[in-house]
Amino acid sequence: MAISSDFDHLCVVLVSTRNPLNIGAAARAMSNLGFLRLRVVNPYEASFREARSAVGAAPLLAKAEQYSSVAEAVADCSLVIGTTAVGKRELHHPLRLLQDAAPLVRKQLRSGRRVALLFGSEKRGLSNDDFSHCHWLLHIPTRTEHTSMNLGQAVAVCLYELARSSTDSGKRTNGKAVSKATKPKTATAGELERITTVLMDALRASGYLGERSIAAKEEKIRRMVRRMEISSADAEVWLGMLRQMLWKMKPPENRH
Amino acid sequence: MAISSDFDHLCVVLVSTRNPLNIGAAARAMSNLGFLRLRVVNPYEASFREARSAVGAAPLLAKAEQYSSVAEAVADCSLVIGTTAVGKRELHHPLRLLQDAAPLVRKQLRSGRRVALLFGSEKRGLSNDDFSHCHWLLHIPTRTEHTSMNLGQAVAVCLYELARSSTDSGKRTNGKAVSKATKPKTATAGELERITTVLMDALRASGYLGERSIAAKEEKIRRMVRRMEISSADAEVWLGMLRQMLWKMKPPENRH
Repeated sequence: MAISSDFDHLCVVLVSTRNPLNIGAAARAMSNLGFLRLRVVNPYEASFREARSAVGAAPLLAKAEQYSSVAEAVADCSLVIGTTAVGKRELHHPLRLLQDAAPLVRKQLRSGRRVALLFGSEKRGLSNDDFSHCHWLLHIPTRTEHTSMNLGQAVAVCLYELARSSTDSGKRTNGKAVSKATKPKTATAGELERITTVLMDALRASGYLGERSIAAKEEKIRRMVRRMEISSADAEVWLGMLRQMLWKMKPPENRH
Repeated sequence: MAISSDFDHLCVVLVSTRNPLNIGAAARAMSNLGFLRLRVVNPYEASFREARSAVGAAPLLAKAEQYSSVAEAVADCSLVIGTTAVGKRELHHPLRLLQDAAPLVRKQLRSGRRVALLFGSEKRGLSNDDFSHCHWLLHIPTRTEHTSMNLGQAVAVCLYELARSSTDSGKRTNGKAVSKATKPKTATAGELERITTVLMDALRASGYLGERSIAAKEEKIRRMVRRMEISSADAEVWLGMLRQMLWKMKPPENRH
């Protein structure tokens, strides 16, 4: 298989993975399928060290980037997708089946925008807080009686589908020019997180959020900001507006 | 995912698998993706015993059938397919990429004929003798520099593709995913205009807009609010937030 340079724009992000075998397995599937950019958020230190010495995908693991929060790990990505087995959980995000999601991801990658694909820990998957950094969620269709997939296998299946759809159709040639011409650059996760932060501060200053409800509301606000799907340029304007309002709401002695 | 009864005609055949973790992983992927018929040929005895006690796919492993030769394991199958990483080996069989192979397998399964899908040992894959029992070979497209996939991941990817093409024809029953992916009701022009008005008032109160620049900026702000493409529900939340901030920015004597 010829590896597409588009694949370089996809970051596989493993959040709080515990088992070194699973980190190694995810890295191996990435190496097999041609996606070489791995990021890990808060892995168990010993596990990550052990995984790095695993056979099969050493170069990829050596280059893996380590972060201490999801926000930092996805800051430069303009599309952030969480994976979930769904289960009995109530979801507050749009949910797409893998095969419907793949063309959307491919389109982003082709236009040179960075995409983050998040996988949660073996035990609990991604948390609601992790989800709140996502634009939407992705689900591999599984048997209702047994929905929870092994991490390495889930990574393998997702990347197979992404690589698969890249060879699906002949309509790749013009895609780049068209998407770049029509759509302005989407705000990155970092820009959206800055809006979220200032908006939270402004809501607190305005009395919209009581001190007790802040934690509970933060996830909701973060999700809402992601739903805006705004451009980088508009993100800049929103930030400016909110900062000014925040400044105005402060007691005069605290303004600077 | 609703499990297709066709899947019952597929036998996953693991030949001379050594590692109990790999047998367990293959069984788990089968259970996830709805293929419940596992056959093992000459597994290392201890490994197979250990795998049977693995979590996640116990019922499937308990029903696994054990054979001492490939010939016996595939005797009742009318299509026998070997999987291979290809590599440097000279092949004497037709070779199909997974996504081209899947429709052929599905067709057999639909007609009620039994299909065997063979996976070799972790070290050496299937032998030429194993291949000689096969009608043709199947290959998962991988990066040229790293062709050898982990056994459990290869099983997961193959079965995903088989299940995938079975759901291609629109008979997808996972109502949860489909209905959740549908977009919430978009905000009306009236709702957007209310946001615009309050936002303009808030920007004026904050000092973001000087009195003279208001007219010039109003169009820009209005367009920007339209670009948000938000839902009715989110429009309501934004209105509430902006109104609260506006209230807070007013001099105390003008708040009511």
